[in-house]
Order: sequence, then structure tokens, then C-alpha cells
Amino acid sequence: MTPRTDFAAWLQGTNDMTSRFVGAAGIAGLVNVAGGLPDPSLFPSERLADIAAGAIRGTPEVALGYGPTPGLPELRAEIAARFRARGAAVTAENVMITASGSQALDLIGKVLIEPGRVIGCDFPTYAGALDAFRPRAPRYRHLDLADHAGLPAALLRTDLAYLVPNFSNPTGKLVDLETRRALVAAAEETGTWLIEDDPYGALYYDGPALPGLLELSCDGGDGPYRGPVIHLGSLSKQLVPGLRVGWVIAAPEVIAQLSSAKQATDLCSNTLAQMMTLAALREGLVEEVHPRAIALYRERRSALAAAMARHISAWFDWEVPVGGMFIWARAKDRRLDVEQVVEAGLAEGVLVGPGSAFDPMGLAGPALRLNFTANDAEGLDRAMARLARAMQAVSPAAAPAGLAAG
Amino acid sequence: MTPRTDFAAWLQGTNDMTSRFVGAAGIAGLVNVAGGLPDPSLFPSERLADIAAGAIRGTPEVALGYGPTPGLPELRAEIAARFRARGAAVTAENVMITASGSQALDLIGKVLIEPGRVIGCDFPTYAGALDAFRPRAPRYRHLDLADHAGLPAALLRTDLAYLVPNFSNPTGKLVDLETRRALVAAAEETGTWLIEDDPYGALYYDGPALPGLLELSCDGGDGPYRGPVIHLGSLSKQLVPGLRVGWVIAAPEVIAQLSSAKQATDLCSNTLAQMMTLAALREGLVEEVHPRAIALYRERRSALAAAMARHISAWFDWEVPVGGMFIWARAKDRRLDVEQVVEAGLAEGVLVGPGSAFDPMGLAGPALRLNFTANDAEGLDRAMARLARAMQAVSPAAAPAGLAAG
Repeated sequence: MTPRTDFAAWLQGTNDMTSRFVGAAGIAGLVNVAGGLPDPSLFPSERLADIAAGAIRGTPEVALGYGPTPGLPELRAEIAARFRARGAAVTAENVMITASGSQALDLIGKVLIEPGRVIGCDFPTYAGALDAFRPRAPRYRHLDLADHAGLPAALLRTDLAYLVPNFSNPTGKLVDLETRRALVAAAEETGTWLIEDDPYGALYYDGPALPGLLELSCDGGDGPYRGPVIHLGSLSKQLVPGLRVGWVIAAPEVIAQLSSAKQATDLCSNTLAQMMTLAALREGLVEEVHPRAIALYRERRSALAAAMARHISAWFDWEVPVGGMFIWARAKDRRLDVEQVVEAGLAEGVLVGPGSAFDPMGLAGPALRLNFTANDAEGLDRAMARLARAMQAVSPAAAPAGLAAG
Repeated sequence: MTPRTDFAAWLQGTNDMTSRFVGAAGIAGLVNVAGGLPDPSLFPSERLADIAAGAIRGTPEVALGYGPTPGLPELRAEIAARFRARGAAVTAENVMITASGSQALDLIGKVLIEPGRVIGCDFPTYAGALDAFRPRAPRYRHLDLADHAGLPAALLRTDLAYLVPNFSNPTGKLVDLETRRALVAAAEETGTWLIEDDPYGALYYDGPALPGLLELSCDGGDGPYRGPVIHLGSLSKQLVPGLRVGWVIAAPEVIAQLSSAKQATDLCSNTLAQMMTLAALREGLVEEVHPRAIALYRERRSALAAAMARHISAWFDWEVPVGGMFIWARAKDRRLDVEQVVEAGLAEGVLVGPGSAFDPMGLAGPALRLNFTANDAEGLDRAMARLARAMQAVSPAAAPAGLAAG
């Protein structure tokens, strides 16, 4: 018996980065600086254990039953209230709960992308978004964010724009306030949907947060919001990632279509996880974790930058980002094969993220994405020392004098 | 600002049944016989509360962290072991965990359907599957399951076949053993993928379960299974629906592609829900709930059939199914407008499922799907009395003498 029907064509374009990473995670002693993982020491597990048990005992028919497709009404209202407090005139009608930020991207693809439609991105961009949109067969254009005057014309050439304004994954770049204003003005002028993917918005280490595209697009009325921004958020980087609870904030007609798409995708999200998220928000758990997370990650960002300076400055340049989870290491040698670096790194016991997965058109040159949140200073130093040995194997000509092999 | 980009075309074909049902659920005193809901009195909530808290306290970094895309290895192994005990030669490599059976349908659509590919179904069929496949733009053919000799030729005209052999949703029909054997033989001969959607397989009320398509396709070796059957299961109807944990059992190369698709869809499922499912299986909770569920639902099936005989036999015919959750009521008058019946039912305080959602080609004639698991005997009698009043409003000529209006 040979199956007659081929697997769908889009699957040939997927990157196997994540599954390779998961496979590599089992290697003893490996230091993983490839993922985007929060530190589990920050998880408020005792409180969440009590919350989970209390939710199940208190209202088992809700906690263990099917829930409404767009999410628990109380959680939608709580998210809306938090965004209103930040200056966005949104109501519960603007909010849909998703099973993670990734699911939001899948649903947006189903609702807004038809084959051949054009997505504008500031490349390199988040590989998970490229993956999520791939079954819908879009095309891509690079958006030059520095050319403010050209943004309306650029948006007219795209059906939707996808951006991570707070600490772009993978580059860590922060989109400045002027550019945010120009983007929102261009989207409002042209009617182009503007997706603001914001998993890292709470991770500013050096100053107050800039207003988001959603806030900048709100006119200060009572809501519901009816503009072009589609905002995606989650608590994966602020509380715990395993609950898989995220949200979309958008115009009510977009929420209605996303809800139809979600009905066809998974009927509804896990209800217990939504109740746990609601309780964590109401009881202030996110605010309790936040200062500890900022202090820990700020210190680790400095530790990674210092370790990079000690070990890999012969091969790479970088800027220290003001937030997020990653430092983007650009190879000085534009001919460097990053796939080879990933393999050599694995042989030395360090897992790094290849920039190519985020840069399918090769606009940015060879680079690595290095995470600083999931390892302590010692682990980060060990990782960079191992990466240096891997680089010496791959690109020995550039090796600094005195670097020992092995 | 007017958005320039239309919503994707497939959304125009979606049925709004589920969202209408959710909206109607808020009507005071409404009796809902439209959904497919288990009875919450069966939820083992005390035990699940302890399990949830114990999982979070015991291994918070696992319970609250990202998990592997194809599911927790221990849960994949446990599912495989349970199917091996039923005679299916499968290993953990054959199993992927999904966020509900619905997600499995979405992922299968992404992996096996390209626009224009042909799905064979025994219509009327599950509306949720039609919804899940719709973004992939398939075509459909009716499969005549009674024509065993014609099945290979019929399967050659389809890219995949989708079936609910145990108590078809919506008709409650059980596919007999001979037909199962013929289907599996035809699929093995032709190489056509055969999707066995099995949410109701544990709900046999009148005798032992028939072997599934997966078991019939297994040759009794050690596994992994490499045949054409793709089996979907979940505990939504056996334990609780809110955890949103389901599984796919299929050839390893299908599991690998489904895992790529899941990575692009939600990265991974809620880990706590997977740990709760694993503990519920290991501690025998499913086996504890099962006899109580069978006794309760068997009694309610009889109660609904009796109430139908008392109140609506002037308008409908039906067979009492030997399992599942639904009785399929076929209108005697083939001109009956079931949408009108649903509206008239709502006005009388009963929510019924329109057969049209399951029968897009109108092959079966007007019918209603009536659920018997979510209401007690008194509720079911009230529901049928209200439906009779609705029918009298819609189709008064057929009303039995003596039925009072209002």
C-alpha cells in the first residue's frame, strides 16, 4: 500500500528549527541559548496550584466544561480593562482569547490571507509567524521602517503588515516612537491591517515602555476600537508559558471573523487555563512577578553581552538591546554558513539559533539569535566559550590569538 | 478608514450554528438539546483538583512550561499502550497529542488537503469536520458504505475518506463490522487515507464495542503501525471536555507532518492539561466514570425516545441508536424548513440542532439532531413538548388532534 495523496505543498517550506531544538534538548550538558524560554524560577507555582484546585472545586462545570469560542467573558473584560488603563479605548467586544499567541497568528492567517496576498514585514522577522502564515501561501515584501514618508505607499502595496515593535524577535530592535506614529498614520490612511505582535512588551530593562501601535491608533473615545491595528498579546513571557493563553485585540468585525475561524480550529480554548489566567491577573500575580523578572533578565542581558565580548567578538558584532530576550549577533564575515555554526555548536555542547530561519530572503546577512533569559551568568559564559570553539572550527582564520581548541 | 483587504473567502461558507447556540445558551429556562455536551455531574472534579495542584507543585517547570510539539512523551506512550491492549499494534511514535479532536481535524486539513482535493464522507456528517476542512477548500463526494464491492473504486475517486464509524454525528448510525472490514480492505488496496473520528467509541449502550478501523488495519506485529487509517480520539465525552486534549494515531510519517503543522499552529498544547489527562488515565478515573456514564446516558436515551414518541411522532421518524449522544429525527414532510423549526423552537424555549448543517448537499432530507446526554428525563420531556408546540406553529396540518397551542 502506497499512499496516493501527497502531503500539502506548504509543508516543504517549513523550517525544522524548533523540532531540532526539542530533539537537542535531551543532550546531557548542552547549554541552550537558542530558545525564547522564561526562567522557571520565576513561576509562581504555589499560588497557581491553589488557583487551579480552587477553580476546579469552585465551579467544576465551568473549569472542566466547554467554554465560549471567543473566550471566557470575564477574562475578555479583564484584558480590555488593562488596556483601557494604558490608554487604549477598547471593550470586551474588541478582545478574543486564543490558545497562545501562536494560535492568534494561525487564525489571522485563516481570516486575512488568501494565496498570493502580500504581507509586509521588517526582515528579519519572527520565524513562528512565517510558519503560521505558510499554509495560506502569502507573498512577502520588506518594509523599510526608516522611510516614514514612504510608509503609506509601502502599505498600499501590502494586504497586511506584521511587526514586533517591542524588541523584535530575532533582532531585539525597538521601533521608536516616531516610526510608530508614522506606521499608525499610514495604516489609518490606507486601510491596511497592522498586526502588532507584542509578547515582549513588558520586558523593558532601561526605561518606561513606549506606547503601542494599538494605543496610538485609539482616539480616546469609549470604544469599541474600530481601527486597523490588530494587537496580539500573551502572558507566556510574563507569567508562565505552559497555560497557552493569549489574546487578540482588534475591531469587532475582525474579532467576529477570528471567532468563526477559532470555532473551526479548536471550538474553544482550555477553560481551566483561562480561569487560572484571570485569577492570576485579578490577584496581581503578574505584577508580583514583573520586578523580579526585570531584575533577573537585565542582569543576564549584561552577562551575555559580557560573555560575547570575552569570547566571540572576533567573529560577530551586536548591539545590546533595551529589552526582550535576545541579542542578535551579526557575522563579520558575510560568507559565514550559520547552519555549519549550529552543527559545530552542537558538537561543542551549545545550541544557538540560526538567523536564516528569520530571514528567508537573506536580506540581513549571516547572524545568530542568542537568548539570555533561560541561563544564569555562568551558563551564558560557558555557552559563549563553547561557541568560540565552534567558530574556531568553522572559521579559524578569524580566531583570536591564544584561543585554545577543544 | 476602510480596510482594503477582504476577509478570506472560505469564511462566507461557515455555518453559525455553534455561535448561535452559544448565544442562545443565555436564554433563561431554555432546554438545550442541540449540543453534544456530557453531563457535568459525571466530572470527577475533586480528584482532578488534587491532580492539577499536585502536578503544578510536583514539577512546576514541566506543568507550567512549554512542552514538546507532538505531546508529552509519557502521555503518547500511555495512549499507545491502551490501544495495544485493544489489539492495535501501535507505539508512541504513532501518537500525537492535540488540543482537542477539533484541532486534529484542522491539522489533518493542513497536511492532507490542497484546494480541490476530494474528501469522501457518508453524508450527513459531522459539521465540525466540514468547518475544520473549509479553509483548505476541498470538494466532497458521498460514499455509499452499503456498496462494499464498490468501495475500492469509490476510494480511488477520493484523496481521503472521513468517517465516524461509532455513532455518526449527527445520525447516531453504527457502521457494522462487515462494512468496517470492507472499508479497511479498500483503503489498504487503494492507498487512500481513512480518517476514523472516534469521540463516541466508549459510549456503547447495548453491547460490546466493535473493533475500530485502526485495529482492523493492524497486522498484529509489534508496530509502529504504517497503514492508511488515521484515528482521532479524545476524552471530551468520557472524562471532561474542558481540558481540550485529544490524539491522532497514524503512520509515523503522518505524525511527523502533523507535528510540523502543529508547530506552525500553536507550538505545543497546554502541558498541565496533558499531565492531568495522563494522571486520570493512570489512576483509572476514566474507568471509574465509564459505568456511571453508560448507565446515565442509556436511561436518558430511552427517556428521549419515549418523549419523542409522546410528543413529536406526528412529524418525525427515527431509529433509537445503540450508542453515542444523539437521536436523528427525520421529518416526514420533506418540504419542512428546519431553520424555521429552530427559530420556532427557540420561541418555545427549546434549542434543537438543524440537520442542514451536517448535510450541505441536502442528500438526507430535513431532519433534526437531538441530544439526550445533557438533560434529565424531565428536561427531555419538556424539550419535546416544546418542540411539538413549535412544530404545530410551523406545520399545523400534521399536528395530532388535541395538541394544545401555547
